[in-house]
Amino acid sequence: MKKISIQDYLPFIFLAALAVIGIFLPTAPTFADASKYNAADVAWVLVATTLVFLMTPGLSFFYGGMVNKKNVISTMMQSFIATGLISIIWVVVGFSLAFGTSKGGIIGDPTTYFFFNGVGSGGPWGTIPILLFALFQLKFAVITPALVVGAVAERIRFTSYVLFMVLFSLLVYAPIAHWTWHADGILFKLGVLDFAGGTVVHISAGCAALAGALVLRRRKDHIAKKELQPANIPFVLIGTGLLWFGWFGFNAGSSLAANGLAVTAFAATNTAAAAAGLSWIFFDVIRGRKPSVLGFCIGAVVGLVAITPAAGYVGVPQSLFIGFIAAIVSNIVVHYKNKSAIDDTLDVFPCHGVGGMVGMLMTGVFASKLINPAGNDGWAYGNFDLFYKQVLGLLLVVTYSFVVSWLIFKFINFIHPLRVTEQEEELGLDVTQHNEIYHPQNLSINGQGSLAEEPVQHG
Amino acid sequence: MKKISIQDYLPFIFLAALAVIGIFLPTAPTFADASKYNAADVAWVLVATTLVFLMTPGLSFFYGGMVNKKNVISTMMQSFIATGLISIIWVVVGFSLAFGTSKGGIIGDPTTYFFFNGVGSGGPWGTIPILLFALFQLKFAVITPALVVGAVAERIRFTSYVLFMVLFSLLVYAPIAHWTWHADGILFKLGVLDFAGGTVVHISAGCAALAGALVLRRRKDHIAKKELQPANIPFVLIGTGLLWFGWFGFNAGSSLAANGLAVTAFAATNTAAAAAGLSWIFFDVIRGRKPSVLGFCIGAVVGLVAITPAAGYVGVPQSLFIGFIAAIVSNIVVHYKNKSAIDDTLDVFPCHGVGGMVGMLMTGVFASKLINPAGNDGWAYGNFDLFYKQVLGLLLVVTYSFVVSWLIFKFINFIHPLRVTEQEEELGLDVTQHNEIYHPQNLSINGQGSLAEEPVQHG
Amino acid sequence: MKKISIQDYLPFIFLAALAVIGIFLPTAPTFADASKYNAADVAWVLVATTLVFLMTPGLSFFYGGMVNKKNVISTMMQSFIATGLISIIWVVVGFSLAFGTSKGGIIGDPTTYFFFNGVGSGGPWGTIPILLFALFQLKFAVITPALVVGAVAERIRFTSYVLFMVLFSLLVYAPIAHWTWHADGILFKLGVLDFAGGTVVHISAGCAALAGALVLRRRKDHIAKKELQPANIPFVLIGTGLLWFGWFGFNAGSSLAANGLAVTAFAATNTAAAAAGLSWIFFDVIRGRKPSVLGFCIGAVVGLVAITPAAGYVGVPQSLFIGFIAAIVSNIVVHYKNKSAIDDTLDVFPCHGVGGMVGMLMTGVFASKLINPAGNDGWAYGNFDLFYKQVLGLLLVVTYSFVVSWLIFKFINFIHPLRVTEQEEELGLDVTQHNEIYHPQNLSINGQGSLAEEPVQHG
Repeated sequence: MKKISIQDYLPFIFLAALAVIGIFLPTAPTFADASKYNAADVAWVLVATTLVFLMTPGLSFFYGGMVNKKNVISTMMQSFIATGLISIIWVVVGFSLAFGTSKGGIIGDPTTYFFFNGVGSGGPWGTIPILLFALFQLKFAVITPALVVGAVAERIRFTSYVLFMVLFSLLVYAPIAHWTWHADGILFKLGVLDFAGGTVVHISAGCAALAGALVLRRRKDHIAKKELQPANIPFVLIGTGLLWFGWFGFNAGSSLAANGLAVTAFAATNTAAAAAGLSWIFFDVIRGRKPSVLGFCIGAVVGLVAITPAAGYVGVPQSLFIGFIAAIVSNIVVHYKNKSAIDDTLDVFPCHGVGGMVGMLMTGVFASKLINPAGNDGWAYGNFDLFYKQVLGLLLVVTYSFVVSWLIFKFINFIHPLRVTEQEEELGLDVTQHNEIYHPQNLSINGQGSLAEEPVQHG
Repeated sequence: MKKISIQDYLPFIFLAALAVIGIFLPTAPTFADASKYNAADVAWVLVATTLVFLMTPGLSFFYGGMVNKKNVISTMMQSFIATGLISIIWVVVGFSLAFGTSKGGIIGDPTTYFFFNGVGSGGPWGTIPILLFALFQLKFAVITPALVVGAVAERIRFTSYVLFMVLFSLLVYAPIAHWTWHADGILFKLGVLDFAGGTVVHISAGCAALAGALVLRRRKDHIAKKELQPANIPFVLIGTGLLWFGWFGFNAGSSLAANGLAVTAFAATNTAAAAAGLSWIFFDVIRGRKPSVLGFCIGAVVGLVAITPAAGYVGVPQSLFIGFIAAIVSNIVVHYKNKSAIDDTLDVFPCHGVGGMVGMLMTGVFASKLINPAGNDGWAYGNFDLFYKQVLGLLLVVTYSFVVSWLIFKFINFIHPLRVTEQEEELGLDVTQHNEIYHPQNLSINGQGSLAEEPVQHG
Repeated sequence: MKKISIQDYLPFIFLAALAVIGIFLPTAPTFADASKYNAADVAWVLVATTLVFLMTPGLSFFYGGMVNKKNVISTMMQSFIATGLISIIWVVVGFSLAFGTSKGGIIGDPTTYFFFNGVGSGGPWGTIPILLFALFQLKFAVITPALVVGAVAERIRFTSYVLFMVLFSLLVYAPIAHWTWHADGILFKLGVLDFAGGTVVHISAGCAALAGALVLRRRKDHIAKKELQPANIPFVLIGTGLLWFGWFGFNAGSSLAANGLAVTAFAATNTAAAAAGLSWIFFDVIRGRKPSVLGFCIGAVVGLVAITPAAGYVGVPQSLFIGFIAAIVSNIVVHYKNKSAIDDTLDVFPCHGVGGMVGMLMTGVFASKLINPAGNDGWAYGNFDLFYKQVLGLLLVVTYSFVVSWLIFKFINFIHPLRVTEQEEELGLDVTQHNEIYHPQNLSINGQGSLAEEPVQHG
């Protein structure tokens, strides 16, 4: 039983305070006028929200299967805890920052929907209740910081990562969501197209990942050029399956209605993922590698990333090309990253960051008003202006998310060591951060940590 | 090849008899008048039913990951087989007992919907076909006895558990469902509020679990105070992910329509789960434990349990409080249970039983007519009467489910040993009950059981 | 780094060519007139399509958990890659072959919907956009060749299997889908009933599986009568859970609307799966075996297979019988197959082939116009003619799919060895085909393959 410092009390006190405030807040009445909603759209967005939820446990398996077996549980936990942490932050203030009354197109007013006040009783958002829109967006806010885990895995202190998630969510995610999807947001008004989160989710997470990898520096095993085997490749496969499954909610749900646009986005999503998975392994083969499950899974995820901003704006044949090219670009960036001194553990920047950039640019090329009249034609259909705007939007989001994430990591490191000790890294984060192990048969080895100090709890 | 007793023929003969009866039953026509249904509500409840189905395999992983590695498969099987067993019981007679013509508010007439007769051709249930309502309810009936497994795992004989499920379903689940959700049920008429199964599902399973643990007595390893490691923590995480995912169908589906109430229930569900997961680990930290994946997962499930009766009656800020407090209460009860001589293997009573009770009481405190005009105001909004009724309902269900489950376990033990032999317990239930093993590398050790007597079958 | 042959370039070049063609194809406009669609039906079929997608990763786990631990990853990969491969083929030409303008009821015109041209802008298909219908059908086309994997696992060369999938999809799947589901198809016009793919999916996959097992011949371990343990039974359980879950989309989605027929199909599906799972293990028990997780899982899948052609035509009591009898028949066929020299690794023919046949015949017996006025009465209701037509349809599909699949396997073997070398089979396909391993602790043993030649890539 370790000694408890005053700092250990802070998370509990903070949560307790929110819970007590919750008691005294008024209960917002449910939707005055249901006739304003379309029940079929409500049904579809309810489902889409549920599907996007499952992406985060899926991501836990996608990442957890790839790390060393002494860090499986900690890597999974770092992603999965976002379902708890960001859900609360989003309800209390995140949704307001992203979708509250705009302060100059930069950020939402934090009081507009404080504690979801006024969300339950508010007017409709299109054809669905605003509360449903807020929940759908919540799931996007949850997965974004969970994506960053992959770059800092196997060496970041758990409490530091929790703190990073909170600050990233408030200072990086919420503003970029506001810029891109709020009707008064600066990128929205500029005309930048991002259907389901190429900038908001993937570029922001990818650039934060790069910042994290740089601030944290390399793992000891990486420096030693130790060849590490992925802990459990079937976990990566089921993770990919759940991500792809949930991504239909992510992209086709982003039409916020059970309409033709949702179907179009579904078609583009599936086609790009399929093309990218094949492209990755076929490209591996011509470079002398064997076609691997990891390659197909990673490729498919890159395809899903790249089609995300484009899904509701491009046709099916174009989405095949987008998936194909995105996988090759990310594959090459991974190759060069592997030769560099940057230790982005699970290639979050090459896959999500670069994948998101390719997607934003391709949206600027292949967007068509025939697909989505609310969008615009792209460069391929004679309108260079859209491509130019996509580049501008991309540059702003890359710069902002990298710089602010870098500052957040530096700030955390200043108040609290960002990285575990050398001995903890050696023993693995599972046992040292969480007192849990993935491989029971290795108990005697890992037992040098703090395991078995306390009774195991079940439920 | 073991000798077959007459008793071994009974399950097959019983199933065969039902199958043969099935041939001769009339095929009920499908829905005479489709205009009475709302297609969007049908779509949503179809999906919700599908989601609730997945909770049972999810539960198999949630439980199977926590037990000792020699009992992983048997624990999973005990839960998963409910998908087969209870589906058949519910079709033949369970739905009638729960929702058939009321006999004095106590039980439904078993002939009303015998073999789903009249369900297909019956009138609508609200805006959906009664057959769809019967299927949605079927999935609730499936998961409830599957929850009990956690308390009796690692020592109950498989055939005894199957028999328990049948009797529990008929004698405990169906009556309580009738009392609570049938328009003539005694608790329904009293005005007790239980949105999605706080009494029917969680308190009844939790109290049956306690009864089972008491009748079965402690595991040998528990008596020996052997420190057992959970077999596979990632299994617990994916189980939690699938439970949380399915719970959106469970709670938001319980509005039986794609409407604002479904959205409200969704919001309360996610908020309570998130708050409870964090509450559990933050509370662990101030008590000197490390924040664990198991803690977050168990906490989240406790939050889901506690919000279940309240989901359609309370606001979002209140649901944050409900999740927060439920996790602390269950965490403390687990702590005291661990010091007691009760061997509820995976803490089903502290988590589902107590969690359900906290949820029923909180519904009595925070229910608001602003959220759900069909409900009632709670104590916090000046109506102590609702809280009083919730206490009455809770006491009745706790008493009834504990006593009847205890009698069922005693009765089974009387006709057939409830518990495996000491040697079987030592070898593990996987190999002795099912002739299967989870850890192939331990084959030589476990091989002392009956493994390899017969060819392995695939499919 | 192995030497790259010209042949290694072909897949990449082929995909690149399709991607480049994709750029220049016109973007078909989205749905001119949304008023023709029913939004609730769109919502439900979107969800159903998503559910059917998840069946393929589910199948990867169902199969991957049953093979030897040195072939887990390769078996999973062979199934999972269908999500990439068949998605592209279906978009480019598969959907046209199956649902394009009929050439004499035998095959669709490949140009009708080349590259989904005209699919986006086409008229409605019933009450949903034709693009959505094409996507729903895509998921069926994906899983069918993935089913065949189970018969050829643990010895087929990866590249050969990829080639098989392509040829099977074009030469077997597309024609049979055309015959059965196109309004001008020969079986459709004959009046053969196949609600969700008893012939198209299960009989065709089952017969291709038998052909594959015969052409490939037996595994070395099979010849040596080595008793192999399944690699991971929990994987089989989660696979079964995901298959059952997705099958609600498969069968209930096949009504293509959120209506009473979807609900009926859902009820039949769940009842048959439940009855078959129990039937399999209860039958095992009376034959002296222990009730196993594998048995319950395989039985449930057989029930799902058998109810697939019948789901929208039969009542709930009849579906209980269908599940019950199908499991017994398949169980017996597995028993006799195990005594034969045929090495259908995971019993695809006895389970999918025979299960599909039982389902087709039972549809001919128990179909009722009361359930589905668009169908016909079966033998049990006085109309022998339907049963006779079901037999005809069954015979045609069995013969065609077996013969053509056999020719495909022979053809591939002619141009490229179908089977891995003896040494590769000994080492396992995971390391020799994909350079990946499932059991990291066995690294030193399997390391005799080519592992560690190249850096592991993450993402």
